[in-house]
Formats: sequence, structure tokens, C-alpha cells
Amino acid sequence: MREKLTIIKVGGAVVEDETQLAMLLHNFSAIEGRKVLVHGGGRRATQVAAQLGIESKMVNGRRITDKEMLQVVTMVYGGLVNKNLVARLQANGVNALGLTGADIDVIRSHKRPLKDGIDFGFVGDVDTANGKMLSTLIEAGIVPVMAPLTHDGQGTILNTNAATIAAETAKALATYYNVTLIYCFEKKGVLSNPDDEDSVIPVITRDSFKQLVAGGTVAGGMIPKLENAFQAIDAKVKEVIITLATAIDGKQGTIIR
Amino acid sequence: MREKLTIIKVGGAVVEDETQLAMLLHNFSAIEGRKVLVHGGGRRATQVAAQLGIESKMVNGRRITDKEMLQVVTMVYGGLVNKNLVARLQANGVNALGLTGADIDVIRSHKRPLKDGIDFGFVGDVDTANGKMLSTLIEAGIVPVMAPLTHDGQGTILNTNAATIAAETAKALATYYNVTLIYCFEKKGVLSNPDDEDSVIPVITRDSFKQLVAGGTVAGGMIPKLENAFQAIDAKVKEVIITLATAIDGKQGTIIR
Repeated sequence: MREKLTIIKVGGAVVEDETQLAMLLHNFSAIEGRKVLVHGGGRRATQVAAQLGIESKMVNGRRITDKEMLQVVTMVYGGLVNKNLVARLQANGVNALGLTGADIDVIRSHKRPLKDGIDFGFVGDVDTANGKMLSTLIEAGIVPVMAPLTHDGQGTILNTNAATIAAETAKALATYYNVTLIYCFEKKGVLSNPDDEDSVIPVITRDSFKQLVAGGTVAGGMIPKLENAFQAIDAKVKEVIITLATAIDGKQGTIIR
Repeated sequence: MREKLTIIKVGGAVVEDETQLAMLLHNFSAIEGRKVLVHGGGRRATQVAAQLGIESKMVNGRRITDKEMLQVVTMVYGGLVNKNLVARLQANGVNALGLTGADIDVIRSHKRPLKDGIDFGFVGDVDTANGKMLSTLIEAGIVPVMAPLTHDGQGTILNTNAATIAAETAKALATYYNVTLIYCFEKKGVLSNPDDEDSVIPVITRDSFKQLVAGGTVAGGMIPKLENAFQAIDAKVKEVIITLATAIDGKQGTIIR
């Protein structure tokens, strides 16, 4: 029987709030068995960029990564956020290893071509995630901590959405494990009523997703998140869960099947 | 018979000059067999700190690392410099893995106590380098690329001199390999006459070192560099070489035995 593997994806908001971060690290450390942490850090990058006098340009919630911004995200995601997470997990007895996609060629991507005339700059769309290498590390007792950075195999780091990193990693590892992919979120799950924090939709299937989008219940940034989730399910990931960063035990939130 | 391992330590000056960096990466990639790269990045850290309005304070060539500066070096060493080196080595077919001391607990240190009344801040003096873990990675065909950062095991990253990282790594790996430790330098080696770039001293022993210091031929930052080298030799490192970053084939520069 295949072993269970839990992949947790946390966004910048959690990582940058000390109270939430401490609880996340506590809960992540308590997860039994094989696990992977994938983190964002966009707010911190925006903050550091501003301190450096670099303006953050966003289109549809996606960052335009010019040459200067690439340096900022490489510093903030690969250095500041990643290494602090690793050090704190080590303090909790978790044998964490910080990785970008460039490290041991774990995630390779290509620079995104122009889309609707928009040049996203140094943004990478994933080609391959190296499940074999990752599973080798995991079987050695190592816990990968993945920054939202990839590389093009020709020497250039590229900026890649953390949710995409998590989904591609989950898909690549689905060959080796029964993967549960958990997306941490600011709410308890996908809500049927945005004004009611407790209106968590317990399960979303592909059919109900279409209805939720058509009816306007699911909108904005939640749509690509759920699309990523369904792609993961199609690629044999066992389940995807959307939940609070404080509720990553796999028993709370919205389950996508 | 034990395998040969080459450890190259490069400073910030090389890493930040594109021409020198390209040649270093070319030459490093050409080194046969097992290898490790250890890098600095102090000039870049000073530059980024200045852009962020943070003043760099140095005492005897050593950086005072206050809380803000710790964030800068974590970003610059662990992110910007390390990940770009890793991506470019991958492009050269070298299976590089960027590491700080926190990653898989590779180098653990303690915060330096006050020295002569000077508080160096978040600077780490090394306690242990994990030769077993590093050799496991190396035997898997992985090439560690080490940033000058360590951790205290309690969740805090600490700033540690790259030469010290290189020496401690060399010592830890001397149990497993015949280690050649090469320090890249701005000159062809240790010079007997600072005005003559070709006056390279071919070999320095502990006895000749004392004489060179007493006579003033060796001074300033070269003294701790050579002291580190002799400590490495005492700890069974086979040889230490000081040479140009463009001459890392092990056949040029000053050999310390």
C-alpha cells in the first residue's frame, strides 16, 4: 500500500503574521508522516520592493516580474521567507530543506509567452516537477519547503505562483504516494455566503464547481485555485482541501474531489 | 581508497562581476568528481542594505549583523546570490543544491558572545557541520552550493563568514574524502611582495606562516584566512590552496600544508 503524503500550501498573509505563522508551524510539525510545505510571500515582496523604490505592477492578481522585481522575489521568496521557515521548522524537530525549482532541478519551467498582449516578464509556467528526486529526499526523512520560484534550465530563475508549485508537486508525487493537497486560506473554506464565515461548502465536485461559478458564488482568485485543484485530482492526487492555516489536520474546510 | 573532493570558496567580488563569475562557473563545472561551492556576497549585501537605508557597520572587516542586517543577508546570501548560482550551475549540467546551515541542519552554530565589548549581533560561530548528511547528498550526485548562513537550532538564522563555512565543511568531510579546499582570492596566491603580482609563495607551512606574519609579509584579512587553513589541515583536510578564481584547477596558487 502506498504511503500518505500531505502537501500544505500557505500564502504570504499567513507567513507574515507572527501569531498565524507560529500556529501554522506548530500544526505542520504535528502532521504525522511524509509532508511538504509550499509557501508564498507576495506581500513581503511588495513591501521590500517598495522599500527599494521598485513599484509592484499587478494584472488580474498576478505580478508583473521585470528584471528588478525578479531580484526582489528571488531574495524574498528564496532567502528571507524560505530560510526563516526552514530554521523554525528545524527548531521544531522537522528536518526541513528549502528548495526553489532550480535546486536539484526540482521544477523546470519556461518563461510565459505574451498573453492577451500582456508581458508578465520573468514568470515561469511549469514544464516538469521532479517527483523522483523529491520522493528520494522524502524517503530520506527530509521535509521539502518549497519557494514559489522555478528555473528555465538555462540559468534564469522564474517567478511561479505558489498554488501552481503546490499543484505540480502534488501531481508529480501522486505517482509515489496517496497525496492530500491542502491550500491554506483566510477563511474556513469555500463559503456559500461570503457574509457568513461558517457557510463552508463541505465538498465541491467538478459539476458543482461549474454551478458555483455560474451562480457567482465562486469568483475572483478562487476560480484559478479551484481549477488548479481539479487539475490535481485529474492527475491522481487523492484529495484537495481548502481550509484555514490553523486547520490543516485534513478534517476541516472544503474538500475538492 | 577514498575519493577526492574539491571545495571551492569564492568571495563576493567574484560573484558580483559577470565576467569573473562566468569564468568561475565554467571552471567549477569542469572540475571532475565530487565538489562543493561555498560563496560569499558581502558587497552585494552592503549594496542592498544601502538601497534599503540600512547602514553597514564593520569592525575589523567583520560585519555587525543587527536584526535588520540579518534580514538583508538572509535575502542576499540565501536568496539572490545562492539561487542564481544554483540556476546557472544547473544550466551547466551541475546538479546544484543551494544550502544554508539551517537546511537539513547542515551547519549549526551559536550566537557569538561579546568579544572585547563588541556585540557582533546575529553572527554565528560554528558548532557542528553535518558531514554525514553532506556526504549522503554528494554520493547521490548532488553538488552543494553553500551560503554563508547558519542556524542556532532554535529557529534563528545567523550570519557566518564564508571562509569559516568552507573550512568547517572541509573538516567535516575529511572523514569521508581526500579534501582539497581552494580559497579564491583577488591575487594569484599569497604574495611575498605586494607590489609584484607574480611573487606567489608556492607553499606555506605553519613555521613559515609565523615568520611571514612576524615579518609583516602576511597581514590584515590574510591572517584569519591562513589560520582557518591551518585548522583545516590539523583536522585532516589534505591541502588548502589560495588562488585566483580563474585558476581553481588545483595546480596554481599558494598551497598550505
